[in-house]
Amino acid sequence: MSMSLFDRVAIVGMGCTRFGEHFCLGADDLMIEAAHAALSDAGLQVDQVDAFWLGTQISGWAGVMLAKPLKVQYKPIMRVENFCATGTEAFRSACYAVAAGLCDVAMAVGVEKMKDSGFSGLELPAISAEGTGVDVTAPAAFAMMANAYFHKYGLDPQKGKDVLARIAWKNHRNGAKNPRAQYRKEVPLEAIMKSPLVAAPLGVMDCSGVADGSAAVIVVPAEEAYRYRSDPVFVKAVTSVAGPGAGTLDTEWDQTTIRETVTAARLAYAQAGISDPRRQLSLAEVHDCFTPTEMILMEDLGFSERGRGWQDVVDGVFDLDGELPVNPDGGLKSFGHPIGASGIRMLFEAYLQLRGQAGPRQIPGARTAMTHNLGGLPWECVTAVSILGREPGPI
Amino acid sequence: MSMSLFDRVAIVGMGCTRFGEHFCLGADDLMIEAAHAALSDAGLQVDQVDAFWLGTQISGWAGVMLAKPLKVQYKPIMRVENFCATGTEAFRSACYAVAAGLCDVAMAVGVEKMKDSGFSGLELPAISAEGTGVDVTAPAAFAMMANAYFHKYGLDPQKGKDVLARIAWKNHRNGAKNPRAQYRKEVPLEAIMKSPLVAAPLGVMDCSGVADGSAAVIVVPAEEAYRYRSDPVFVKAVTSVAGPGAGTLDTEWDQTTIRETVTAARLAYAQAGISDPRRQLSLAEVHDCFTPTEMILMEDLGFSERGRGWQDVVDGVFDLDGELPVNPDGGLKSFGHPIGASGIRMLFEAYLQLRGQAGPRQIPGARTAMTHNLGGLPWECVTAVSILGREPGPI
Repeated sequence: MSMSLFDRVAIVGMGCTRFGEHFCLGADDLMIEAAHAALSDAGLQVDQVDAFWLGTQISGWAGVMLAKPLKVQYKPIMRVENFCATGTEAFRSACYAVAAGLCDVAMAVGVEKMKDSGFSGLELPAISAEGTGVDVTAPAAFAMMANAYFHKYGLDPQKGKDVLARIAWKNHRNGAKNPRAQYRKEVPLEAIMKSPLVAAPLGVMDCSGVADGSAAVIVVPAEEAYRYRSDPVFVKAVTSVAGPGAGTLDTEWDQTTIRETVTAARLAYAQAGISDPRRQLSLAEVHDCFTPTEMILMEDLGFSERGRGWQDVVDGVFDLDGELPVNPDGGLKSFGHPIGASGIRMLFEAYLQLRGQAGPRQIPGARTAMTHNLGGLPWECVTAVSILGREPGPI
Repeated sequence: MSMSLFDRVAIVGMGCTRFGEHFCLGADDLMIEAAHAALSDAGLQVDQVDAFWLGTQISGWAGVMLAKPLKVQYKPIMRVENFCATGTEAFRSACYAVAAGLCDVAMAVGVEKMKDSGFSGLELPAISAEGTGVDVTAPAAFAMMANAYFHKYGLDPQKGKDVLARIAWKNHRNGAKNPRAQYRKEVPLEAIMKSPLVAAPLGVMDCSGVADGSAAVIVVPAEEAYRYRSDPVFVKAVTSVAGPGAGTLDTEWDQTTIRETVTAARLAYAQAGISDPRRQLSLAEVHDCFTPTEMILMEDLGFSERGRGWQDVVDGVFDLDGELPVNPDGGLKSFGHPIGASGIRMLFEAYLQLRGQAGPRQIPGARTAMTHNLGGLPWECVTAVSILGREPGPI
């Protein structure tokens, strides 16, 4: 990619439903709530939006499914889908259109209805290339990463379980402060450690839940952002990287890193001018689909040195009052994972934090935020990363 | 949309498989053939492409499904889906990225494996908003348009059948000249008229077939196009319009027009500077999913006056040697409709024609081409339109 999105696009409105069991609401209802919250936040009517992107994986077909609930009148509406990174990919698309000067106001909406879809999450079969792979469940795929990591760095099983539980404990503690989270209770470490086994070493409490939800974001050219509000949020980078299948193409891969994440983060830092993410970021929302994912991401995103991520977790570096808060909103762990919505839900927390609107979760003086959204499995996935800033100009 | 794509992007390579029954090939194989044909045509290697868009509706999930067959190494790959307009939407996405200056070389690949999917085409249930619509098959939906049109303009049933058959006859006649078409035989008018009834007045020969296929397109900034080849093709416009559901929101709608198409074409003509499409276009590839669709499109696209489309069809205006050839490659009628691939297959014919490479189908002196790609049903759809030119500058 030859050029960067740095300071070319800004967010001027966002909305997010509560995530959870919405048995009485359809995807339509959830999109209406999120999109109108974003419009209201930006002070816009739907007919002032020039183009739309809809991110959903399993809740319907085609952008046209957004037309009727929002009463969109003959505008471009495109559906995008990239596994669990779908939400951020819808946002990336909207940013591209604005950056190209092809629209003045673009909206990305992410939505998923999971709870009555028969999609349990735990039973999700892994994706394998036709004829070349073995099907595993998602928890098993990420459990293998945990075991590989513990083996490589000499953590015994009990110590490993302690580290993973610390991540779930932190995220539920943060989520307890968030009115939009699905689960809003702190969970004692003891209960996490003793949760029923799903795929060793992961228990139920190491897995994110299944939820319904929707989130929406409105972007405009950065130079016009202050016309919409006094406190817009500036896009410093959006990158996306799809993998070639480390598991089959790379015999050196030892399951303790997600290469797509390493590359997407590196490109995003370059676009945003970040050399020391641990110090330069005020917060990060990362894809904690399972607790070992978050542990390994701390290293892949450059927050911890290789082999040190687990120790930083235990030391509280990523706690809400730590050196670099990670998943201050509670993460997938507290929100559950309505696939198309999660990436934009992450952006929503960044948007609140950077504008000082995160209430009891507010990180004092937050200036720069990262979101990290992963779709697929450790050995072949999409990683979409964004970096947002409170102000225009260098980070 | 505030700005236009006019002369900002150019096509420098394309590939297209034969469409048809490829029981021995997977979506992977088809994508490899189309993408490598496009790369070879542009004189590029896959690692020189900065970003990819994959259009598929039912043949898989996520852009990552393109990574392994093409051996893409850590690049952005996004899947888009917008019903039967999916292919053109992938192309639109690639054009936006290039226009934004976010990549130097972008590729869009469309693919669908239909023949062993259990997707018969004729049995496709129509899409209805939850709880508000009635399910009908796609042939029935477009048959209703035919009947409404015949009633409005006073064509008796026999005359109506004659007009529709003339369209199928023309498209098969064109397809017989095309080595990539699924059906490469002329079909006598008599046989078309007598084909078994599917949804009155449509017989089997009024319906496009089901096929497997893939097509790929490579775009670059227009100002760099001549670095890649001496005969690039310039993008004059790409528009996309999603409908609000004319059937439920607009009581004036009489089923003889597709409003999304009217709007998308009007916007595209404005971008491209076209005031008289019938004279200024050298050819048009349109979405002839059923014969009445093509008949009505002739009016919606401004090629015929209202109520005159059927007469222009009968008069041969849209024949290969007519005033404005429509579907010179044989259309969906001859190719079948592998959903994600069709829009890019249309672009492929435009690309060949504008470069004088269409062999026995060549339209002498072709300078400007339109593609029209429809996804959904007459009362709620997506229409994606492109206009391409042989040279930079005004049409």
